Amino acid sequence: MYRTRTCGDLRLADEGLVITLAGWVQKTRKMGGMTFVDIRDRYGITQLVFNQEVDAALCEKANKLGREYVIQVTGTVRERSSKNPNIPTGEIEIIVSDLNILNAAVTPPFTIEDETDGGDDLRMKYRYLDLRRNAVRKNLELRHKMAFEVRNYLDKQGFLEVETPVLVNSTPEGARDFVVPSRMNPGQFYALPQSPQTLKQLLMVSGFDRYFQIVKCFRDEDLRADRQPEFTQIDCEMSFVEQEDVLNIFEGMAKHLFKTIRGVEIKEAFPRMTWHDAMKYYGSDKPDLRFGMKFVELMDIMKGHGFSVFDGAAYIGGICAEGAATYTRKQLDALTEFVKRPQIGAKGMVYARVEADGNVKSSVDKFYTQEVLQQMKEAFGAKPGDLILILSGDDAMKTRKQLCELRLEVAGQLGLRDKNKFACLWVIDFPLFEWSEEDQRFYAMHHPFTSPKPEDIPLLDSDTGAVRANAYDMVINGVEVGGGSIRIHDSKLQDKMFQLLGFTEEKAQERFGFLMNAFKYGAPPHGGLAYGLDRWVSLFAGLDSIRDCIAFPKNNSGRDVMLDAPGQLDDSQLEELCLKVDIKE
Amino acid sequence: MYRTRTCGDLRLADEGLVITLAGWVQKTRKMGGMTFVDIRDRYGITQLVFNQEVDAALCEKANKLGREYVIQVTGTVRERSSKNPNIPTGEIEIIVSDLNILNAAVTPPFTIEDETDGGDDLRMKYRYLDLRRNAVRKNLELRHKMAFEVRNYLDKQGFLEVETPVLVNSTPEGARDFVVPSRMNPGQFYALPQSPQTLKQLLMVSGFDRYFQIVKCFRDEDLRADRQPEFTQIDCEMSFVEQEDVLNIFEGMAKHLFKTIRGVEIKEAFPRMTWHDAMKYYGSDKPDLRFGMKFVELMDIMKGHGFSVFDGAAYIGGICAEGAATYTRKQLDALTEFVKRPQIGAKGMVYARVEADGNVKSSVDKFYTQEVLQQMKEAFGAKPGDLILILSGDDAMKTRKQLCELRLEVAGQLGLRDKNKFACLWVIDFPLFEWSEEDQRFYAMHHPFTSPKPEDIPLLDSDTGAVRANAYDMVINGVEVGGGSIRIHDSKLQDKMFQLLGFTEEKAQERFGFLMNAFKYGAPPHGGLAYGLDRWVSLFAGLDSIRDCIAFPKNNSGRDVMLDAPGQLDDSQLEELCLKVDIKE
Repeated sequence: MYRTRTCGDLRLADEGLVITLAGWVQKTRKMGGMTFVDIRDRYGITQLVFNQEVDAALCEKANKLGREYVIQVTGTVRERSSKNPNIPTGEIEIIVSDLNILNAAVTPPFTIEDETDGGDDLRMKYRYLDLRRNAVRKNLELRHKMAFEVRNYLDKQGFLEVETPVLVNSTPEGARDFVVPSRMNPGQFYALPQSPQTLKQLLMVSGFDRYFQIVKCFRDEDLRADRQPEFTQIDCEMSFVEQEDVLNIFEGMAKHLFKTIRGVEIKEAFPRMTWHDAMKYYGSDKPDLRFGMKFVELMDIMKGHGFSVFDGAAYIGGICAEGAATYTRKQLDALTEFVKRPQIGAKGMVYARVEADGNVKSSVDKFYTQEVLQQMKEAFGAKPGDLILILSGDDAMKTRKQLCELRLEVAGQLGLRDKNKFACLWVIDFPLFEWSEEDQRFYAMHHPFTSPKPEDIPLLDSDTGAVRANAYDMVINGVEVGGGSIRIHDSKLQDKMFQLLGFTEEKAQERFGFLMNAFKYGAPPHGGLAYGLDRWVSLFAGLDSIRDCIAFPKNNSGRDVMLDAPGQLDDSQLEELCLKVDIKE
Repeated sequence: MYRTRTCGDLRLADEGLVITLAGWVQKTRKMGGMTFVDIRDRYGITQLVFNQEVDAALCEKANKLGREYVIQVTGTVRERSSKNPNIPTGEIEIIVSDLNILNAAVTPPFTIEDETDGGDDLRMKYRYLDLRRNAVRKNLELRHKMAFEVRNYLDKQGFLEVETPVLVNSTPEGARDFVVPSRMNPGQFYALPQSPQTLKQLLMVSGFDRYFQIVKCFRDEDLRADRQPEFTQIDCEMSFVEQEDVLNIFEGMAKHLFKTIRGVEIKEAFPRMTWHDAMKYYGSDKPDLRFGMKFVELMDIMKGHGFSVFDGAAYIGGICAEGAATYTRKQLDALTEFVKRPQIGAKGMVYARVEADGNVKSSVDKFYTQEVLQQMKEAFGAKPGDLILILSGDDAMKTRKQLCELRLEVAGQLGLRDKNKFACLWVIDFPLFEWSEEDQRFYAMHHPFTSPKPEDIPLLDSDTGAVRANAYDMVINGVEVGGGSIRIHDSKLQDKMFQLLGFTEEKAQERFGFLMNAFKYGAPPHGGLAYGLDRWVSLFAGLDSIRDCIAFPKNNSGRDVMLDAPGQLDDSQLEELCLKVDIKE
């Protein structure tokens, strides 16, 4: 045994105990004839004391310890004279009687502190050192705990975790697959799953009734801050359920996680919002409801008064920022610049302050009477001190998305996007189809197995774009943490879907034949959803990027710079796989 | 809601309740004016009753139900007149008032019964139907429960589950890797992990202290009954531990699983056997200790009596099968044939029966006096009615392996390999190296990071082959369920290992550079082990092949015949990956 206790668990009550600890040297400092060493392990930090007068040789040895040396010490727990209230072990220290250097360490390329001096690239290359930092390790501890509590909850609800294969076949209608050449089947390839969607549906056909899996999924897409080529899903499916059953079970899971992980008891039901309302009032299918600033449409009030920008607009809408009339001209100009950025694309912004006397002062006063401006104020329910911001445009949907960006920006500036406050909701009634102007065809908004709302089935032919799906997303703080749908279990309806999506019968058979075939043998009504574990952990941990909750993430070129992967293969490996690399310049 | 109860939970106490069930039609039968339908879901089977006289139309609808139709029924729970004691719901039946066909089903290609008429190939192709069978589903339920209890135990012991990447780099010194071409890094490949060995060691360098992961691993090897290209490991690692600490924690885990999964409380410590003794007494590094028949060596007794086969042998050894003197000549001939099979390779077998009067009658009586045979009898401690079986050969290790096969065969014939009896042990003190005659070099028996026993370090140069490792396997009923080692944390010792394994410094740097580099920054003493989850589940489920505890296994050509994977890629996919298929005839 290398240790009898850990560096995090000694307290005043342990005074007098002789203990052995093992860990890393966090720092050393000399003071008078004493040497103090902070020893660190996963559990905490404990102060060690060496006294020059008591044991000069031992103290000398301690003086030579470098940062990150791995040591083992034996000593006696003693009350500290100058206590450190910031750490749980801050009331005690160890009078060391024996010091054993288990491993020396060269100087790390950055400091192992919460606030480190290492840049992103350096920390990725030495990820194993970055993971020593408390701040990073805590994220992975949280991740462990979340996955553990997900399993606890789902097991209690009768879900079985079933492992589905990683070496599968290519799935259509999604992102690009990662593929794996098969040596035993020359010229053929497996694909890594983008999700176990079809396999979990087969498990429902098998009568598994309630399935889940915390599972790695893979997409060969260009990367962004919140995307990784491999990511982890909490994948779930249930049989003999309607949408309401699924929402109940998984709202329960979310509440269980809030309670066990964040210590927050949520009693009320999550609000539900149709996709249509989410777009209309927040310009987003994942509205952040930690704060208000719901969109107000102003076409009736603001059109026809001679302000050509508004008069020619297909959409005029705005938000009211409570108490933000204090915004200076400079701040308002910055907001205007913000919405005019190419990635947002608005042409300009109109603003109006409600003054102390109730009068409205706007940037377009010359076009509007105070009477009209008062009508506008009423529409927002604005009070003295409030700031109204208005956008307009040719395309209602585009303008709403711009207004959404503005709303989030202003909320951020006003401190309304508090990482320790949580607002959950279900967005429901998504459209079943998305029209692609480019391809002149419909695509499935979720995937081709999503069922239409029964009452909209008659519209499939007559008004395809208007058909709503039995599909739902769980949104927390403007982040889509999960989403799913009730699936089609009727093979005739499934055929109809494939037809509307432009699949020939042959193509549908080629791509989904095995699933369609399986459905002939008695498919139960079923539905489910999948959560993005990485995103949810990031949200609970208050992180800006999912990378920080992944032990060994990849960079934006899909490289693991620590492992230096991917890499070259030997010619013999390629030959065995019947492959040739063929790079065209 | 499609149902108010499941098909497995109604009892006599529920009599009179009006309930709704949903599930699959297991079978229908008509008797008098009644139709009985068994409805099945994951939870059980319930009998439904339709009465021609009460509701002729409803009864007619029931008569038309085919096997595996998906139905929903509402009705009243009633006590059965002829009860079925074989199923938990056997005391009740449902008087159906409403029947709703949720989905029709074509006739399945084999019967969905515990004893099915479907052959292996058919059941693999229609795996989703095979999974409907109680016998198969139970294995996956067991698998879920085992993984769940593994996590419960390890979480309580302070282990953190950390997900390591699936897209990594190629690992040397192992089996063949599966590789994944990188589109973003043309001409380069990721590899799928054969195990997260180096990553978990990096996590120890990171101070994670106690890590585990239930994780998919991949090996591109030719397949056998208990091998799959993807398999699942319970992968574990601990810091600041010696071998004893690791054995304690994981013996505790095994006992926890025996208790929670099999209901067996094991109080005693698992026996420990050195690799040397395992080979000497059982001819195997994974002895099956459910029964005795320990090898007895007979060179001293049996040599030099004129029986040339024994006189020229390097090894003579045997086993004593209690009470097996009843074996007929025919049975003994069959055993002789068994050991002479090419895959076993013995030249012949000598047998001896202990008769009721204590005399020994052997197949080599003409060479041995009764006195010598009595000495032999004493060596085995054989009693009247026992059967002694002896093999000999030029190579002690080879002969022991043959004797091992014979021991297992005889034990099987005598019913001593009871699937409901469990014998656990640790095999310890494995050799650190294996000598390859072919390559004229040493290989690491486990992997290059396994540490030698400290007392054997002086032998590294002088007697390399004799160095024992701090390595251990957990063996249950002759199956190696897990194994691991204490790792080298001293970079000088690691350099020495690489040198003994014939790596040039350059090659070692190229292959393991990042790990060796990491170790310079303060590596703690650490060690761990990995369990094969598939094997362990198979063992607990009493299965002969790991395939039966995997939801969607692959066949011996590495194909998923249900998904029809692997498959061809489109030319455009290959082009994007800068690859050409190049099959040489």
